[in-house]
Amino acid sequence: MRDVHRVLGEWMEQAGCRVTIDAVGNLRGFYAASREGAPRLVIGSHLDTVPDAGAFDGVLGVVLGLALIEGLSLARLGFSIELIGFSEEEGVRYAVPFIGSRAVTGTLDPDIIERIGPAIREFGLDPAGIPAAALANDVIGFVEFHIEQGPVLESLGRPLGIVETIVGQSRFALTFVGAANHAGTTPMHLRRDALATAAEWIGAVEEEGRSTAGLAATVGALEVESGAANVIAGRVCTSLDVRHPCDEDRRAAVRRLVSAAEAAGAARSVEVETRPLLDRCATAMDHGLTARLEAAAIAEGFPPHRMASGAGHDAMILAHRFPAAMLFLRTPGGISHHPDESVIAEDVDCALAVGARFLAGLEADYA
Amino acid sequence: MRDVHRVLGEWMEQAGCRVTIDAVGNLRGFYAASREGAPRLVIGSHLDTVPDAGAFDGVLGVVLGLALIEGLSLARLGFSIELIGFSEEEGVRYAVPFIGSRAVTGTLDPDIIERIGPAIREFGLDPAGIPAAALANDVIGFVEFHIEQGPVLESLGRPLGIVETIVGQSRFALTFVGAANHAGTTPMHLRRDALATAAEWIGAVEEEGRSTAGLAATVGALEVESGAANVIAGRVCTSLDVRHPCDEDRRAAVRRLVSAAEAAGAARSVEVETRPLLDRCATAMDHGLTARLEAAAIAEGFPPHRMASGAGHDAMILAHRFPAAMLFLRTPGGISHHPDESVIAEDVDCALAVGARFLAGLEADYA
Repeated sequence: MRDVHRVLGEWMEQAGCRVTIDAVGNLRGFYAASREGAPRLVIGSHLDTVPDAGAFDGVLGVVLGLALIEGLSLARLGFSIELIGFSEEEGVRYAVPFIGSRAVTGTLDPDIIERIGPAIREFGLDPAGIPAAALANDVIGFVEFHIEQGPVLESLGRPLGIVETIVGQSRFALTFVGAANHAGTTPMHLRRDALATAAEWIGAVEEEGRSTAGLAATVGALEVESGAANVIAGRVCTSLDVRHPCDEDRRAAVRRLVSAAEAAGAARSVEVETRPLLDRCATAMDHGLTARLEAAAIAEGFPPHRMASGAGHDAMILAHRFPAAMLFLRTPGGISHHPDESVIAEDVDCALAVGARFLAGLEADYA
Repeated sequence: MRDVHRVLGEWMEQAGCRVTIDAVGNLRGFYAASREGAPRLVIGSHLDTVPDAGAFDGVLGVVLGLALIEGLSLARLGFSIELIGFSEEEGVRYAVPFIGSRAVTGTLDPDIIERIGPAIREFGLDPAGIPAAALANDVIGFVEFHIEQGPVLESLGRPLGIVETIVGQSRFALTFVGAANHAGTTPMHLRRDALATAAEWIGAVEEEGRSTAGLAATVGALEVESGAANVIAGRVCTSLDVRHPCDEDRRAAVRRLVSAAEAAGAARSVEVETRPLLDRCATAMDHGLTARLEAAAIAEGFPPHRMASGAGHDAMILAHRFPAAMLFLRTPGGISHHPDESVIAEDVDCALAVGARFLAGLEADYA
């Protein structure tokens, strides 16, 4: 992180930014407006990623913002630009994501500040300064460029996508409790097979996802306790992840899926324990700012695909205080969080052109 | 094992047996006939069990045989009785089951003898003597008393069952190979979900078992590689265990289930790798000896339920050389290989009465 701060910080300075690192470890480059007291546009994404990741998740959005500032060739605008490389978006270290963006929106809980305090100090920063890292109310809006991290744009043959909503998400842990028994001596009608129960339910989850527009429903984790080829599964622990742009639709799907689990269990005298872990509402991007970004893309000849983001992003946090918009770049193979993660150079050119026209459009209003 | 040999050996001697331990560690008590050169009836079961097991699996059959000999009160019959407490039926130590019974049928592979040699020597025995442990051809038949280890007799309210066949068994490892992807950003129609595929197939396995009389079909093990709540499963490893008294029906079921796995995979662009691990034919018990045992049970007022054994037993090995018959005792809750394993004292009385009448019937023929 020190290295990326040093390299990007030098580039920011060369592009005409005043560079600081705030108390939560965000790298911030302030590109001043042509006049004092002008409002600011914030551009940013995160600098961290997951272990064994690729080279583009997060940091591409920061570098794209930097390239847009470089493209101004030190010319000053009617608004300032603050470029932020957010720290700790993924939540790898503390299982708390969006630490950097929560700090700049002033929404980082005191107990999280206390937990991360030692790491902040070890990095040479002072957690007491975190409240001062929050942005003031002079923000026009927040724009984030990010790889899609999914296969939708590639499947449509489109370089760019524009995010209308970041989906809401439910997460549950479900446990199916039947009875472990001998696979040879227990006839089918006397079984209480926890895995067969879970399997029927997983089929219902897939079917629910397929039949409900916009829904992503996934059972990704499944563990058979003391599983063995010759033992009927007595206890199976699973996960449920449900996402949808509309919170009402998402919660209705979750209710149907919990019922489906209970029905599958009742048919086999298998008990089902359901534990809710997460219920996060969808976050809409700002209509006005998104329309500006979309118009810029159309003007450049790359009409973007309007879509929901299935994953959380810093823009989701920023959107709670400021108008926010997101531009997605096509992700070959949908591959992300993996060394094979890539982007197409021409798509990056498209995104840059769109960004430059977006800035020009804002300048027409704020000059 | 030394302790059980000592205790049972003393009891066998007190009952009038000549006691030896053969080179593979079987405890053998020879209860001589009234005349030299008379044929022998072999009664036996195993003395080993699994770790954390109960008190009845195997050893009950040896003790029941001993009680039958004790019941003769040193009176000699027209045939001798050899009571065998088999060693290593479960295959816990070398993953090779039926070591004791294979030795007495002369069917223990030389490579297994070599593998178990050090353990045999450590126990104070000489593996060179294993071939001499084989029974000669003077065997009338082999009778094994054993707990059912399943819930069938209990569900029917019957104390005793008589085994017609020990089921054949197929075992497979199946691997479903799809693509791991982000659970939020990958729409349902672009997924290659290995767990959803496996789940559809597990449903087919359960349905096949339910709709085919006598079939036990089980997926007991399932592992999601790098499974996580927010990642679509890329690779799932499962097991398949199929048992049926008729080999043809079993193999037909297996073919249908392999096809079902491939169809579930094809529908989702998920590859299915199928690896056969075991194809063991069913073993019929001897009609004549079984009819004698059944007649004795009926005469005692406990008509036994005719059934298949879903698990393997020493009788399965003995049946390849000698007429074999098996009497099952009801197992409360079907619980076995567990400290809660139990039997009902009255059921043991039934089995003893049946055994005594069975001996009396043989005596009528051989005196």
